[in-house]
Amino acid sequence: MTAPHSRMAAEIAEQPAAVAATFDALLPLCATLRDLVGERRLMFIGRGSSDNAAEYGRYLAEVHAHRSASAGSPSVATHYRADLDLRDVAVVCVSQSGATDEIVETQRWAAAQGARTIAVTNVEGSPLASEANIALVTRAGPELAVPATKTYTTQAAAMLVLGTAIAPRPADLDRHIDALPAEIERLVLTEVPDELLDALADATSWLAVGRGLLAGTAKEIGLKLEETCGRPVRGMSYADLRHGPVAFVDSGTAAIVVGPHDGPVVDGIAAMARDLSAAGATTIALGGAPIMAECRFVLPATTLPETVAPVAAAMPGQVLVEALARRLGHDPDAPAGLAKVTRTD
Amino acid sequence: MTAPHSRMAAEIAEQPAAVAATFDALLPLCATLRDLVGERRLMFIGRGSSDNAAEYGRYLAEVHAHRSASAGSPSVATHYRADLDLRDVAVVCVSQSGATDEIVETQRWAAAQGARTIAVTNVEGSPLASEANIALVTRAGPELAVPATKTYTTQAAAMLVLGTAIAPRPADLDRHIDALPAEIERLVLTEVPDELLDALADATSWLAVGRGLLAGTAKEIGLKLEETCGRPVRGMSYADLRHGPVAFVDSGTAAIVVGPHDGPVVDGIAAMARDLSAAGATTIALGGAPIMAECRFVLPATTLPETVAPVAAAMPGQVLVEALARRLGHDPDAPAGLAKVTRTD
Repeated sequence: MTAPHSRMAAEIAEQPAAVAATFDALLPLCATLRDLVGERRLMFIGRGSSDNAAEYGRYLAEVHAHRSASAGSPSVATHYRADLDLRDVAVVCVSQSGATDEIVETQRWAAAQGARTIAVTNVEGSPLASEANIALVTRAGPELAVPATKTYTTQAAAMLVLGTAIAPRPADLDRHIDALPAEIERLVLTEVPDELLDALADATSWLAVGRGLLAGTAKEIGLKLEETCGRPVRGMSYADLRHGPVAFVDSGTAAIVVGPHDGPVVDGIAAMARDLSAAGATTIALGGAPIMAECRFVLPATTLPETVAPVAAAMPGQVLVEALARRLGHDPDAPAGLAKVTRTD
Repeated sequence: MTAPHSRMAAEIAEQPAAVAATFDALLPLCATLRDLVGERRLMFIGRGSSDNAAEYGRYLAEVHAHRSASAGSPSVATHYRADLDLRDVAVVCVSQSGATDEIVETQRWAAAQGARTIAVTNVEGSPLASEANIALVTRAGPELAVPATKTYTTQAAAMLVLGTAIAPRPADLDRHIDALPAEIERLVLTEVPDELLDALADATSWLAVGRGLLAGTAKEIGLKLEETCGRPVRGMSYADLRHGPVAFVDSGTAAIVVGPHDGPVVDGIAAMARDLSAAGATTIALGGAPIMAECRFVLPATTLPETVAPVAAAMPGQVLVEALARRLGHDPDAPAGLAKVTRTD
């Protein structure tokens, strides 16, 4: 086995173990989580990769646990200090470091407004973990590369634990959890063809598109590309793409099309891939057979059900981003202009 | 008076009258709205410009009316057909045409899940208006240019009416409504210096940044630039910009910095403008004095309070986009690749 090309590559490879350890640590908290949440609706708070993991949590709550869930706006807490009655809410604050002022302050505000608080963080003893009613501490271990990989993936695993805990019939959600580490093991070994790296390097604009449960995965791959390769990229729902941005898609566009193996959104995503290909874009499939059939390039995709797919689906995208960064002459571990912990007010 | 350069320019100029007519039509509905909403929380549904107007409605509800508000994900309704208990929710569906299948179908789903429904649309008798518990029909008149201008602005006016209706002390919200038409009259006369158009034409990437109540305005100006000028643009909160995309800001970036005249977010937005200018970006202020002081170019900005500013603040951005489209050789009225009513599933 050769040494990994970067810390980011090494951390990508650690994900099967990190996810297994996270499930081992968090699944025993399901009963406590269920009691804490009770009949409350959920509000998720996060920024960047943490918000992308939270988006999975929101869909999982609404689609599979039949529980209303929303994305909270931190400025409502940190700047406007809004007086809201949150006694019927469990707030889920997501932050890798557990020390981002904006998120810690938002959690304090939520508690003061009557909410129960659930922290999802990789750092035991961090302010976010210490002050929450319950802390879901992910077991990614220290992450040294600036772009989040294993911390994002273990946050997604924490979302699945939360969804499992509050689902009316938990067995519907958790029956594929055992399969995830092996699936991730397979996907982190993705090999990216040189021809695909050439096509991405030559493209004048990049985007990543998805929908529904995997919309957050598309956004995460877009964010990772942007941070690590230093170009503007957007990850978005294909419905939002059709409402405007589709106007600029042409032969200079490279589009990563993210979707599930099956389920209610796969046909719409495949139709978007078809339209992007027809507009001349270089399309890269990261999804099931209907999506693969419409794209020029195909990366390996998870075959697990859409419910749990977001815990595994980003892996080939991470591998692609790491290889592309090196190909473009960037250091994947330390992108220009970014620090590991972002300071926002 | 010379003839307008385009239909888009003519429709921009119609906004003072359109907003005044919309307030006249909708303000009498405040008591009915208040009764319909009762103690319910709000969920907003929209895409594209309608979603940008809805974002203002969400902040207004939480910050000024002390009422929880969220953005619903249409796919939860249209694709996953989630079974959620929405009896404690008033759903606000926003669609210019009132005929976008995705939004009409989402409103039907919400009603079936027990929600009260409020439609915001420009078309009386449209499916969205006909089927809602109450329809807030904006008075923009027919909009023929593809990029939404007066329909977006009148949607924002409808959001202010809704916020006023449910605010504990309505007088706090509506006391500046009377001042809006004259303020809009002033701002639609914005003249865009050739030097600014040159700088934008030369830039390699564009973004629009804001925060809080005016985040939706920044997103709307970004979307308008993108649709009309055919290049990828992102509108976003500065907190999201700091979490990744800031890595690609350089001397090729042009950034429109949107903010209020005063209030709790203006200093953070000004700090973002300072950092963007320091990174070499061409910065364009569309906000109060602290923001103007940090930017290379300054456009006229509304001096009305942040609460009502989003109804007026986009105007100079619309004027800029229309002029830039013509400067780049595009037809502002009919951008390539877009139709007036977007079909999404």
